[in-house]
Amino acid sequence: MPRFASLADLRAACLDLPPGDADAAAAVAARDVTLTKPPGSLGRLEEIVRWLARWQGRSPPRLDRVEALVFAGNHGVSAQGVSAYPAAVTVQMVANFSAGGAAINQLARIAGATLRVLPLALEAPTADFTAAPALADGEFLEAVTTGYEAVSPEIDLVLLGEMGIGNTTAASALAAALFGGGGLRWAGRGTGLDDAGLRRKQDVIDRALVRHADRLADPLACAATFGGRELAAILGATLAARHRRIPLLLDGFVCTAAAAPLAKLAAGALDHALAAHVSAEAGHRRLLAELGLEPLLDLSMRLGEGSGAAVAVLVLRAALACHTGMATFAQAGVAEKSAPQ
Amino acid sequence: MPRFASLADLRAACLDLPPGDADAAAAVAARDVTLTKPPGSLGRLEEIVRWLARWQGRSPPRLDRVEALVFAGNHGVSAQGVSAYPAAVTVQMVANFSAGGAAINQLARIAGATLRVLPLALEAPTADFTAAPALADGEFLEAVTTGYEAVSPEIDLVLLGEMGIGNTTAASALAAALFGGGGLRWAGRGTGLDDAGLRRKQDVIDRALVRHADRLADPLACAATFGGRELAAILGATLAARHRRIPLLLDGFVCTAAAAPLAKLAAGALDHALAAHVSAEAGHRRLLAELGLEPLLDLSMRLGEGSGAAVAVLVLRAALACHTGMATFAQAGVAEKSAPQ
Repeated sequence: MPRFASLADLRAACLDLPPGDADAAAAVAARDVTLTKPPGSLGRLEEIVRWLARWQGRSPPRLDRVEALVFAGNHGVSAQGVSAYPAAVTVQMVANFSAGGAAINQLARIAGATLRVLPLALEAPTADFTAAPALADGEFLEAVTTGYEAVSPEIDLVLLGEMGIGNTTAASALAAALFGGGGLRWAGRGTGLDDAGLRRKQDVIDRALVRHADRLADPLACAATFGGRELAAILGATLAARHRRIPLLLDGFVCTAAAAPLAKLAAGALDHALAAHVSAEAGHRRLLAELGLEPLLDLSMRLGEGSGAAVAVLVLRAALACHTGMATFAQAGVAEKSAPQ
Repeated sequence: MPRFASLADLRAACLDLPPGDADAAAAVAARDVTLTKPPGSLGRLEEIVRWLARWQGRSPPRLDRVEALVFAGNHGVSAQGVSAYPAAVTVQMVANFSAGGAAINQLARIAGATLRVLPLALEAPTADFTAAPALADGEFLEAVTTGYEAVSPEIDLVLLGEMGIGNTTAASALAAALFGGGGLRWAGRGTGLDDAGLRRKQDVIDRALVRHADRLADPLACAATFGGRELAAILGATLAARHRRIPLLLDGFVCTAAAAPLAKLAAGALDHALAAHVSAEAGHRRLLAELGLEPLLDLSMRLGEGSGAAVAVLVLRAALACHTGMATFAQAGVAEKSAPQ
């Protein structure tokens, strides 16, 4: 029996969100102004440390245990020719993750993050959502629960990523359902669709929005309707991180779309999440804007797997090193800012 | 006797620029399309590896020996009240660098870069350029030579940074002289000027541009006119990196302005340089646009010291780790992109 026995159970958990620790953030800010640099001159590096402290409830924060969770799922909608790659690639890439050959393996190592890959019923793709809801409620709740329980309370930071041929189509449909507009507004080229493929993808999304129009008022029902399991798991993991006081890095378009229903249910639900980067996938910048998230990096990446989140960890480590390692003005005998002249 | 005995000598060296190694870049690109990811999906990470290979003349490139050079100088113009900090802070911060207490110490460590700090005649500030050229030609050439000779031929990547109270005023005047516009276009708040200080800084720049109008046709004379020694050294180091086949990371506004005369002398002179970030200093984004440089990071940093460049090294290491560590499609047994349908 999953942790969340019904959509109503899950909805209640999504509305029960602990706030951050303002005292821990304030303690970081108080130390920050004593460090040997003009106040504010490290820009987002300073913000990052306050944010880590707020959501860890600890000053200084730490990044000793960082974990990347990569969820994988298969999508019935991929039969519609919405990806440049065959669906078999999902399983093959999971094997590549296990063998250490993918980008995320290299990036997690560089970032000092442990990598856990969680394949979700790859042998049973979700239903093709042009014909039926991708996931029945029970299947959806099971995937959400898997994501929720994957987040260990012991870690300092969690990175979320995904793999699933066809999943930018699911993410685009979900974003459209949550924020309005259709395939033209939200579909992108994913792994590399040509023009004909992009038109097909837009059409698939538009048809699905019409077919499921009666289900789209509820953000959680939207998530079940378009799937896939890896998106549902990311929703669950994002919720768990909030409940367990763990700051979280979102990766690209699919990951952000997967977490977006939480923000529709409750303002501030993603305050413990940082958008690691804005991807080159067409809808991501727009989706981040809808969510009020300011991405940390903009490197034209569009790989998924948690790859952008892993690169962002490096920036977080740089930020924390400055905060914990720098001398204060008093320690260093450096003069502070002059009074206005 | 400095390496460059006259401005004419230096100008000749600035026009004698070796091209990059197209074969090395092509070898990187050829491997890249075999790796288990959609082509292009690592975005700028892929570009970075090609760029490293092109300017190291080696495929794969390497980042075993990375060095940060931080040049420090004092500025006569700081007597005009153009900084929020007293001029004594330059010496104090150099001591802080030596003691390991500054931001760049923490960031260089995280980036795996050795840090060398080169104070340039701090006891003898440049002339106040509202009254006279900041540096006589001989002084200028000496500082350029110091920078040139600081770049070891043995390293794989060099980062340039600076420290010098008043040096955003010199950089703004230099940018104005090279690219047009006056104090209003180029002056920013530096370490944290208030409104009155910013107006004073704009006025200082405008007066200097009028006073030295007859010297500003020659980019190298511009650099000498506004100084300071640390900017001249950065110019020299940037030139040396090109001659010695070492890719280079420029830091913020001051560093970019210091290298800009090279680009005015010869198109493509900064092709071996990557703009590590765009700083929050007002003129930097504009200056990068004038130079056609696309910054890697945008983190609202404005500290100098090479801090943005050090953070960018982390991204370069991530890029290289993917290129060298990932499995190919053949190795991993992953299907390649489908033919268009």
